[in-house]
Amino acid sequence: MLRVLTRSADGSAGIMLGRQPVWCGPDGGSGLAYSHDPSTGTPGVTGSYLAGGSGAQLLAAGGTDLGDLIDTEPWGPGVREALRTAEAAFDWPAMVEFVVERGRLRVIRETPAPLHGAARLSAVAARYELGSLTPAQAVSLVRQQDVEQARSASTETHGLPVAAHGLGVSPGVATGTVVFSAAAAVAAKEDGERPVLVLTESKPQDLPGLLSATAVVTERGGRTAHAAVVARGLGLPAVAALVGGALDSYEACLRTPGGDVLRAGDEVTVDGTTGVLYRGGPSRRQIQHRPAVELPGWLDGALSGLPGISVRVNADSGEDAAAGRALGAAGIGLCRLEHMFLGERQQVLQRVLLSRPGPEMGEDLASIRAFLRAELTDVLVAMDGLPATIRLLDPPRHEFLPDLTERAVASAALDDPSDKDRLGIVRRLHEHNPMLGVRGVRTGVLLPMLTAIQIRALIEATLALRRAGRDPRPELLVPMVSTPEELDFIGDTMADVCAQLGTSRAEAGIPLGAMIETPRAALLASSIARHADFLSLGTNDLTALVWGLSRDDAERHLLPAYQNIGLLAESPFALLDVEAVGELARRVVHDARAVRPGMRLGVCGEQAADAVAVRFFAEAGFDYVSCAPPRVPLARLAAAQAAGCRGADHATATEEEL
Amino acid sequence: MLRVLTRSADGSAGIMLGRQPVWCGPDGGSGLAYSHDPSTGTPGVTGSYLAGGSGAQLLAAGGTDLGDLIDTEPWGPGVREALRTAEAAFDWPAMVEFVVERGRLRVIRETPAPLHGAARLSAVAARYELGSLTPAQAVSLVRQQDVEQARSASTETHGLPVAAHGLGVSPGVATGTVVFSAAAAVAAKEDGERPVLVLTESKPQDLPGLLSATAVVTERGGRTAHAAVVARGLGLPAVAALVGGALDSYEACLRTPGGDVLRAGDEVTVDGTTGVLYRGGPSRRQIQHRPAVELPGWLDGALSGLPGISVRVNADSGEDAAAGRALGAAGIGLCRLEHMFLGERQQVLQRVLLSRPGPEMGEDLASIRAFLRAELTDVLVAMDGLPATIRLLDPPRHEFLPDLTERAVASAALDDPSDKDRLGIVRRLHEHNPMLGVRGVRTGVLLPMLTAIQIRALIEATLALRRAGRDPRPELLVPMVSTPEELDFIGDTMADVCAQLGTSRAEAGIPLGAMIETPRAALLASSIARHADFLSLGTNDLTALVWGLSRDDAERHLLPAYQNIGLLAESPFALLDVEAVGELARRVVHDARAVRPGMRLGVCGEQAADAVAVRFFAEAGFDYVSCAPPRVPLARLAAAQAAGCRGADHATATEEEL
Repeated sequence: MLRVLTRSADGSAGIMLGRQPVWCGPDGGSGLAYSHDPSTGTPGVTGSYLAGGSGAQLLAAGGTDLGDLIDTEPWGPGVREALRTAEAAFDWPAMVEFVVERGRLRVIRETPAPLHGAARLSAVAARYELGSLTPAQAVSLVRQQDVEQARSASTETHGLPVAAHGLGVSPGVATGTVVFSAAAAVAAKEDGERPVLVLTESKPQDLPGLLSATAVVTERGGRTAHAAVVARGLGLPAVAALVGGALDSYEACLRTPGGDVLRAGDEVTVDGTTGVLYRGGPSRRQIQHRPAVELPGWLDGALSGLPGISVRVNADSGEDAAAGRALGAAGIGLCRLEHMFLGERQQVLQRVLLSRPGPEMGEDLASIRAFLRAELTDVLVAMDGLPATIRLLDPPRHEFLPDLTERAVASAALDDPSDKDRLGIVRRLHEHNPMLGVRGVRTGVLLPMLTAIQIRALIEATLALRRAGRDPRPELLVPMVSTPEELDFIGDTMADVCAQLGTSRAEAGIPLGAMIETPRAALLASSIARHADFLSLGTNDLTALVWGLSRDDAERHLLPAYQNIGLLAESPFALLDVEAVGELARRVVHDARAVRPGMRLGVCGEQAADAVAVRFFAEAGFDYVSCAPPRVPLARLAAAQAAGCRGADHATATEEEL
Repeated sequence: MLRVLTRSADGSAGIMLGRQPVWCGPDGGSGLAYSHDPSTGTPGVTGSYLAGGSGAQLLAAGGTDLGDLIDTEPWGPGVREALRTAEAAFDWPAMVEFVVERGRLRVIRETPAPLHGAARLSAVAARYELGSLTPAQAVSLVRQQDVEQARSASTETHGLPVAAHGLGVSPGVATGTVVFSAAAAVAAKEDGERPVLVLTESKPQDLPGLLSATAVVTERGGRTAHAAVVARGLGLPAVAALVGGALDSYEACLRTPGGDVLRAGDEVTVDGTTGVLYRGGPSRRQIQHRPAVELPGWLDGALSGLPGISVRVNADSGEDAAAGRALGAAGIGLCRLEHMFLGERQQVLQRVLLSRPGPEMGEDLASIRAFLRAELTDVLVAMDGLPATIRLLDPPRHEFLPDLTERAVASAALDDPSDKDRLGIVRRLHEHNPMLGVRGVRTGVLLPMLTAIQIRALIEATLALRRAGRDPRPELLVPMVSTPEELDFIGDTMADVCAQLGTSRAEAGIPLGAMIETPRAALLASSIARHADFLSLGTNDLTALVWGLSRDDAERHLLPAYQNIGLLAESPFALLDVEAVGELARRVVHDARAVRPGMRLGVCGEQAADAVAVRFFAEAGFDYVSCAPPRVPLARLAAAQAAGCRGADHATATEEEL
């Protein structure tokens, strides 16, 4: 059975070489050899050798490229043979640590090579294509981060100023803040930062710092230096051997060739694939618009045949829907109508929210209906033949209103009665806790004509597409439900709209579902299931209410402080809170299916593409997860692995070894 | 078995008289007789008689006082006899409806008299004192509203302008808005208002209006008129026969003798005990400072011997603690430190929250410590020998900060850099959803010196009292917990403070408890129970988070709108949401006791004195409920009744009949 290098307890990534006391005379030396390039996976011996030096010296400072020596030195064939037998034994690219003593080769250790990113994908692909791995086995060996590391990082570093060039010695891209010692990296990690550890070269005693780092940069060293080997073992992006870069330990800064000075705390981005160090990090926009992680063809093919929880896409436009579909999404899990209200349209909605019902509102409602119908048509066409869950307007009414503080300051300067009137409305509608206020279905109940117009746009788009011979499959999702009666209210509105359009709910055939995002909806899942055709768990809001924590406010101050003090390992918004939110999720599955066996249950929320969360929701019995388009391939990978883990011992064992 | 008049399905309170077609010549008439005064319970025949009139006429317009006729009319002895036998049969004051036809008495119906308030208390007291009711039986026959109606209403109507005087025909005090027809009362109730129905006189077809009304006022009529009889049957305060008051049906208003005009929608207060109609209603302050409902001595005595869930008091001062103790509280369930920060002290706390730690903060912290120690000493002395749960500062940090909007408007007018600095701090600490932000234990974690000073004040007060030979029994309650680690953080702080004071946690002997008010704390009750000495359920916040609803915002607009549309019967903040919040409460008991059998579990929150909630929490297995001092007697009554209901069929049956 294939055994892959384990991340060992002390983080040494299995390297023994530096610890081996060896005598290295003029006819001796230390070496580290790989059967494949550890960054790209290309077959062929690579590595390095330090004549007359110890293993520790080799790891600290690097050596000569092994490729130049393997065919000329007397110990070359022995190293080749050791790599060949080790590779055959492991059925995996091999790494051999050796010393030469008085001209004689002594192999210290043979292990499977620690591979990440493209190298790992390539090793798995080779074995899959040879037929020595089944699709499920191959899929189980690929980790989400390998696929992410293998993709082009150009979008993320686009536009950032280059600080220095070096050697990419461990692939991947990461952004963080500069620290200049292992101790500073440990402290920064404890403070909730993402330290980029910049050293002259790393030594074994720097291990705690490497374990805390987000990326590593060494002024010296090379592909086989300690820092590079450990970084690859840990999957951290690393750049070594900076060209012209100089650490100034007196000033505690890194002087770059361009005359730039990087100091502790500065933000940098490390591209360990290309070997470039950038100043600064990607903007929020760049992070949000990360390009999709595309799967290699063989992996996409292997996944398609495997079982697993279904993966849908969160798509608010025809474009997103098409992108998600191309990446393998099995439908839309969440289409947010509020995302269709941008620019001028936001003003229209704001007028509706600020006005009292009356004839002057008709024009705005008609305009909303027209553009929603057009947008929904695009979405349904892109997802033709696959389910598309359309959610009624969800966010706090508050978000569509002018900011009270700004309005009040502006108003104080004016002396205009009609302005004061509008300020009065804003003040009246202002809520102290908008997340706990008029939002989701509540807005829909208070402004039924706004609900009706959304439903009408959806039904009109659907009926028109059907008449045109297409196969639209919309589902209507009701957000922020806390009582079954709210669902009935929307159902009744839907029936009214159908009647106005000369059809019926049965004929329109649009299932009605409840979003489970209040704890009450989760606790009352069996009652709500009786009134719904499907349920969709919203993990973001459910987490906020279960914890009594607003994400936006908490992630600015409170959660970092908690992580800092050690009260919390991870933000519950980043990593699914299995104990409490997960417990409610399991309960929803149990209670809903007890009432309606086979009821369709989905999950949407930012955690829905995370491997741990996907496995949790798959095991809990949900039918699908839904995530942003770029995350769809990773979610599909996690879904197939989760299914594999449940079925096959092989995959489980391998996963644990990783 | 005693049977008390049931509130019948059509709301007629059992009166048949008006429906009986009878011939009333000059030697005939219709009458309604009681064996006891239905308002006060004083024994002796009362009622009224209309010579030559039908039952319907008697009910509509009232008649002659029966007391003047019973000893002179030939049918008098027959009525007396009917009352006597009926009273004996029911073992309860009797009501007899009769007609006189051609000089001969015909009894139409004999029933137990519908008694409320003082009259009902007096009837139960008489039977209890004679020994024909056990303490448990007597307690089971008294309803919370009887005790409330029987108390003096003087505080609530104090200072209100008198609009009109009349006859108090159904006891109790209620405030609401004027309506002039049964239909308007029904509509107002549906709109979530509390209609006070003002009529010339009521007729049977006005029943739906009476059922919707909060109180009743009739221009004419008397103690035995339809309105009075029905109002007593329903327990509504009612005033009849206004002196000089005149309904102007053309103008749709009530003209009072003083020249005041009451129109539809005006707020009035009806005192049906004294027969006074006031303009306006009690202020929020008057409502909050309602005097305690004191129990009659016999009832207090009967309760003391009965089992039942323990009742503690919410008390934030020595005065409140003493008041609660005098009313029978078994300890303090909730002492809120934030209520000790009033006036100038609020400024001190605000400075601490706005400053960064530093030497200038020392003075403010010392001042907080000194006054908390003094206040806590008062509280512990008042509750000497009984448990007193002291809660660390809980409310959103936000509440102690200046209002951002006001500050920004004021600041815009100035041009002062130090003002801008302070505005910057307010802006930085401002939260969009303070209920989901830095509050409770979170404030305590972010400002550990503020936590330490609170704990120090408590321990110092406790140790000093012990040295003085007293028996203080404080317990420290940690609010807004969502992880067990938060509790440990406070426990560690407590250990540090103890060490500074030369003692230890074990020696200080102050139990540490968690407030269960986030859904997560409820779901993780077993983990939290392992880290806590006791748990206290906070129903207000738990309800808010389970529903995703902020009470303050929701009760202004959203909940009334929901009740209006019929989506919701009752605000979950007013009536315990048994389905979801109750489900979590039951789970807390189960999970906590599974880990620590016998663990002490309490409830505090505004519902904790409500009879339905007290019964629910008693049955769920909680050890105590805690409520405001004036509600302690009512909660004790509910607690004993809940225990009785579980033990005795008698009480259950009687309760249902009520």
